Amino acid sequence: TPEVDEGVDWVELGLLPTPADPPDNPTTAEKVELGRLLFFDPRLSGSGQIACASCHDPDLGWADGRTTSFGHDREPLRRNAPSVLFAAFQPALFWDGRAGSLEAQAAAVLRNPKEMHADEEIVARLAAVPEYREAFAEVFGPGGVTIDRASRAIAAFERTLVGGRSRFDAFLKGDRAALSDAAISGLDLFRTRARCLNCHHGPALSDGQFHDLGLSYYGRSLEDLGRFAVTGEPADVGRFRTPSLRNVTATAPYMHNGLFELDGVLRMYDAGMATIRPKEDQR
Amino acid sequence: TPEVDEGVDWVELGLLPTPADPPDNPTTAEKVELGRLLFFDPRLSGSGQIACASCHDPDLGWADGRTTSFGHDREPLRRNAPSVLFAAFQPALFWDGRAGSLEAQAAAVLRNPKEMHADEEIVARLAAVPEYREAFAEVFGPGGVTIDRASRAIAAFERTLVGGRSRFDAFLKGDRAALSDAAISGLDLFRTRARCLNCHHGPALSDGQFHDLGLSYYGRSLEDLGRFAVTGEPADVGRFRTPSLRNVTATAPYMHNGLFELDGVLRMYDAGMATIRPKEDQR
Ligand code: HEC
Ligand code: HEC
Ligand code: HEC
Ligand code: HEC
Ligand SMILES: [Ca+2]
Ligand SMILES: [Ca+2]
Ligand SMILES: [Ca+2]
Ligand SMILES: [Mg+2]
Repeated sequence: TPEVDEGVDWVELGLLPTPADPPDNPTTAEKVELGRLLFFDPRLSGSGQIACASCHDPDLGWADGRTTSFGHDREPLRRNAPSVLFAAFQPALFWDGRAGSLEAQAAAVLRNPKEMHADEEIVARLAAVPEYREAFAEVFGPGGVTIDRASRAIAAFERTLVGGRSRFDAFLKGDRAALSDAAISGLDLFRTRARCLNCHHGPALSDGQFHDLGLSYYGRSLEDLGRFAVTGEPADVGRFRTPSLRNVTATAPYMHNGLFELDGVLRMYDAGMATIRPKEDQR
Repeated sequence: TPEVDEGVDWVELGLLPTPADPPDNPTTAEKVELGRLLFFDPRLSGSGQIACASCHDPDLGWADGRTTSFGHDREPLRRNAPSVLFAAFQPALFWDGRAGSLEAQAAAVLRNPKEMHADEEIVARLAAVPEYREAFAEVFGPGGVTIDRASRAIAAFERTLVGGRSRFDAFLKGDRAALSDAAISGLDLFRTRARCLNCHHGPALSDGQFHDLGLSYYGRSLEDLGRFAVTGEPADVGRFRTPSLRNVTATAPYMHNGLFELDGVLRMYDAGMATIRPKEDQR
């Protein structure tokens, strides 16, 4: 039986469900296909050079392998690009959870001048491509190409990126030989003494909540206060959303700032798990 | 003692020497520094978005982690981007060896419309940056910014990317604990029965020569005849330059077309080493 700290509302590990699509953006095969085209198309960016896939490349675990990403004009961004695999299972997107849906997330990135840098010019550029004109009409009806529609198609595509064929899944389905003995004892540690299950639980191995592991770099050049920037709550200083650990070996480097390799993450936890103890002024 | 096929002119594995700089492009600290700036500067590309480091990123083993790279306008290129670490030790650059020096290689990439897409406009763009005007004058004297000079500075920078602090180097220096028992027996296999030393020899673990491992995909959509495109010699069909194996675990995926992971490479060799047996019409 798992060991979890008191008060933690945990969910057992398990097979991934099919992600639910929101009522105002039902998934259809045509929409997914349009989303896929858009996801890989650099014409969505102001420069014409950067696609979603530039930072979320299937070859790199649907991330980019960089410590932190490079945006428009190769300006360094401040955060590590998370994989979009399994993003469909997160209740809030971005390391600080500032987007409430994949639709909102895509629109935010598209409009961000530091990332895709898309604007009405891009919309006109896409609308000039006959295949896009037709696909948008087929999927959304009259009304043409809009950033909102593009975002909805991309979100529908992302909801299909949910893996589910890992050795861990095979093990869950009953194939005991799918995991090595070392992996099984790791899984046991994960669920018990190592306390990982406190935050990395449920089929996606994430509670979707925000926690402070002491990586805010408060007062230093790498400072990133995480969730605090969204809520303004002192208790949220240094809190970041728990990432999924599915397919995690493919998405080095780790943490919101990409400063660790996997062994570094484990050494950090080993040196002492972050204790959830509010500071004086946070009580 | 190593086992090598008859007639193979092999060199023992060993510590890397300092790469020699060519007489017409002596290395100086200022030149290296200018080369470093240029290497990471997206202004060298026609779009202003792509730097050398976009495809040769230190975070990704000085390569890009992609199966094959994406060039200007995110057009897919046909080959896997090799690391520029240790490139200084190769007598000929590119998978097909078509560049005879790092200087010629850099100039070729800069001018290639599918890659950097640089031209006189770029030169003017760089010359408009006071720091570059000064640095080019300091390093090369009067004569301003030219692609040729930029290429020489980049080449000088690349000659500094030569690693040399691996566990293998520690082992060579006498620290026997630096390699695990498994690694040591792998090294022994490498030098003997596995026949790797036939081609991967010398300090850089490459003979700098061209060999056909049967990966030309002749007649199929991925066809790439390798060295043949440079020499026109039938014997060169399917031959590619032996890559260095230093730091090789950091530069997945593998081979000129990026179609293999490391286990796939080993399985390929295990299934039967390519036999150097000319076809009827190649004799
Ligand atoms: C220039 C690099 C870059 C580009 C281009 C880019 N992203 Fe991202 N993406 C990032 C980074 C960095 C983050 C994390 C940002 C943060 O947390 O503040 C991120 C976060 C995300 C997330 C949240 C994942 C999670 O687990 O919270 C999703 C989903 C996503 N991107 C999808 C997209 C889509 C769709 C596009 C194209 C419309 C796109 N990205 C373009 C770098 C990029
Ligand atoms: C208190 C909540 C909590 C606990 C307990 C916890 N984690 Fe985490 N984990 C997080 C958060 C939050 C992050 C992201 C932190 C950041 O980016 O600053 C994270 C990040 C990670 C990452 C990096 C993932 C990525 O894609 O960057 C790994 C790996 C990881 N945790 C594994 C573990 C393991 C193994 C354990 C148990 C030893 C564990 N975690 C326990 C909350 C937790
Ligand atoms: C768009 C991606 C991309 C960009 C940008 C790029 N490269 Fe490359 N690089 C490649 C690919 C792909 C190859 C292999 C091409 C081939 O063999 O035909 C390569 C090959 C090389 C090699 C040969 C390495 C070897 O072992 O043979 C060197 C050196 C190199 N690039 C340096 C540079 C420099 C310097 C720049 C900037 C001026 C640069 N590259 C820009 C993708 C890129
Ligand atoms: C006949 C010459 C030859 C022999 C023998 C040989 N190699 Fe290679 N090796 C090459 C060539 C040439 C390539 C590149 C082939 C290509 O890209 O099409 C290569 C590629 C590789 C790569 C991929 C490197 C990269 O960066 O893409 C690895 C790993 C490798 N060899 C390991 C080995 C091992 C291990 C052995 C012994 C079992 C071995 N090689 C024997 C010539 C050889
Ligand atoms: Ca791969
Ligand atoms: Ca990561
Ligand atoms: Ca490679
Ligand atoms: Mg790294």
